[in-house]
Amino acid sequence: MRAAIFRSGDIVVGDVADPVPQAGQVLVKTLCCGICGSDLHAAKHAPRTVELSKRMPGRIPMDLSKDVVFGHEFCAEVLDYGPGTERRFKAGTRVCSMPVMPRPDAPRTVGYSNDFPGGFGERMVLAAPLLLEVPNGLPSEHAALTEPLAVGIHAVAKANLKGDEAPLVIGCGPVGLAVIVGLRLRGLHPIIAADFSPKRRELAARMGADIVIDPAQESAYARLPADKQAIIFECVGVPGLIQQVLEGAPRGARVVVAGVCMEADTIEPLFAIVKELNLQFVIGYTPDEFASCLHLLAEGKVDAASLITAKVGLDGVKGAFGELANPERHTKILVEPWR
Amino acid sequence: MRAAIFRSGDIVVGDVADPVPQAGQVLVKTLCCGICGSDLHAAKHAPRTVELSKRMPGRIPMDLSKDVVFGHEFCAEVLDYGPGTERRFKAGTRVCSMPVMPRPDAPRTVGYSNDFPGGFGERMVLAAPLLLEVPNGLPSEHAALTEPLAVGIHAVAKANLKGDEAPLVIGCGPVGLAVIVGLRLRGLHPIIAADFSPKRRELAARMGADIVIDPAQESAYARLPADKQAIIFECVGVPGLIQQVLEGAPRGARVVVAGVCMEADTIEPLFAIVKELNLQFVIGYTPDEFASCLHLLAEGKVDAASLITAKVGLDGVKGAFGELANPERHTKILVEPWR
Repeated sequence: MRAAIFRSGDIVVGDVADPVPQAGQVLVKTLCCGICGSDLHAAKHAPRTVELSKRMPGRIPMDLSKDVVFGHEFCAEVLDYGPGTERRFKAGTRVCSMPVMPRPDAPRTVGYSNDFPGGFGERMVLAAPLLLEVPNGLPSEHAALTEPLAVGIHAVAKANLKGDEAPLVIGCGPVGLAVIVGLRLRGLHPIIAADFSPKRRELAARMGADIVIDPAQESAYARLPADKQAIIFECVGVPGLIQQVLEGAPRGARVVVAGVCMEADTIEPLFAIVKELNLQFVIGYTPDEFASCLHLLAEGKVDAASLITAKVGLDGVKGAFGELANPERHTKILVEPWR
Repeated sequence: MRAAIFRSGDIVVGDVADPVPQAGQVLVKTLCCGICGSDLHAAKHAPRTVELSKRMPGRIPMDLSKDVVFGHEFCAEVLDYGPGTERRFKAGTRVCSMPVMPRPDAPRTVGYSNDFPGGFGERMVLAAPLLLEVPNGLPSEHAALTEPLAVGIHAVAKANLKGDEAPLVIGCGPVGLAVIVGLRLRGLHPIIAADFSPKRRELAARMGADIVIDPAQESAYARLPADKQAIIFECVGVPGLIQQVLEGAPRGARVVVAGVCMEADTIEPLFAIVKELNLQFVIGYTPDEFASCLHLLAEGKVDAASLITAKVGLDGVKGAFGELANPERHTKILVEPWR
């Protein structure tokens, strides 16, 4: 099949082996698949990504000498099933799924595995029990936002909110915007959100932020009310951000670290110590959260259309990776491999 | 008065101005005062300590061009009161106090302030409302352990234990030992404790650790039971320790960072992210916790005698700072300025 392949450190369009479903698996046609910041990072820092996987028990690192097809934010269409697999949805049914493939040794992430090509290819093999049918009427391109939305909903869930906290979202990329949606749905106001990009601030307001801050103009931390428990969502994930939060956060603040910083980072622990900060690191989502996000989108609770800034075919993937560096132009670019 | 003075980067014995109590203050004679790891660090990295204070709002940094008298773990005897101050305890009463001096601009820490000499001097000025009478029969040298014990009791309180967690204490210096006491009093077993020093492991067992681990021989993290919520107390406070915990901790672990690392430190956030770790940084104690620790000591709930490994006069302070580097020889050295 055709795919945008990560090969020898570059994104190239070419052919990879057709995926074949085994028992418990389903073959699907990729309808669309979002490009995630993690994809950009994995491409830019591939050896570091592999090194980290090797140091984490129970993880099967990618073999960079072989092809990898990225893409884990997808909507797809059922084509066929592996032998002996219950045909829960008929061919042609549109589905979403967590990008997880259970295996006897360790689960793989679809889109970050040599064995399970992701959504930047024409077809994928998924775990049949994880399939969720896309509710009738929800466009496939909106259904593909289930995964990144779930990341934000999960981060808000892990914040263990009582309902009277003062939330601040640092960084309004796809993760920060999803966190803002989660906070709005939780009814926690006012939501303060900070980003250097005017476009991202505009989107933050559209997703539900009540106060948007340009950190170049003023400190977002200074806007936190003194009489409430501060809950700060770090949604940037680059070196230096955690230390910035440790210095900026008020005493006793809770911090949810949702940004995925894959590099080594320097902190000065004393700032966290003297303020008795709490840092909750988060990643991913539960199956329930994933399913609920698909329904939130289907119910029109999220302005999905505003988040999608471009759609490309396989030939456009490499260019899109470069374009996403500009927050003024793009938020979420969807890949449609059939184009 | 005579004092062991931190002057020009060294500890010297000499004279400083006699402290004079103002309104709301009490003049006391220092009976004994423990040497804390923070004192060693402040002496070794004084400019860094000052730099950090300057970067933290509401803190008055020490002026290193002037004398400082360290010492914040003390038991003392009431001598006299400032003008217009309620004479709550008569002269001769033995007292403990949190080493805090409220001031209109910002509170000072007794023992880390040019204006409020600490317990390595013959006399101190304390805040009269903070005085706690030492219960009859409790030796002054045991009462002086109230402060370091409170640090551990507070760390355990901030862990928000339900009672069914699996605790692991990393580092069995004074902070780790106080944490072990706190866990024992909380009835949480088995308590696992790790330290490279045989003497410290022996003390850990005496304070209540059920399993003591030599990290040179085996991984303490591997001893955590898989079916319980892990709660890890980082009680070392040197660069690299937080990262070690991030790598060693099991998925979903809660970490209480009680070690005070004053240097910059490098972490790889991804280890915390993929395991969704929670880090609660802690420092100090509440007034209630401080008072309860004095009573725990008075009730014989803590084997205070085992923790005190030497007593020195002012002439011995400089040598004691060096001696404390050896965990086999010393745990807590008390200074008795009247010797």
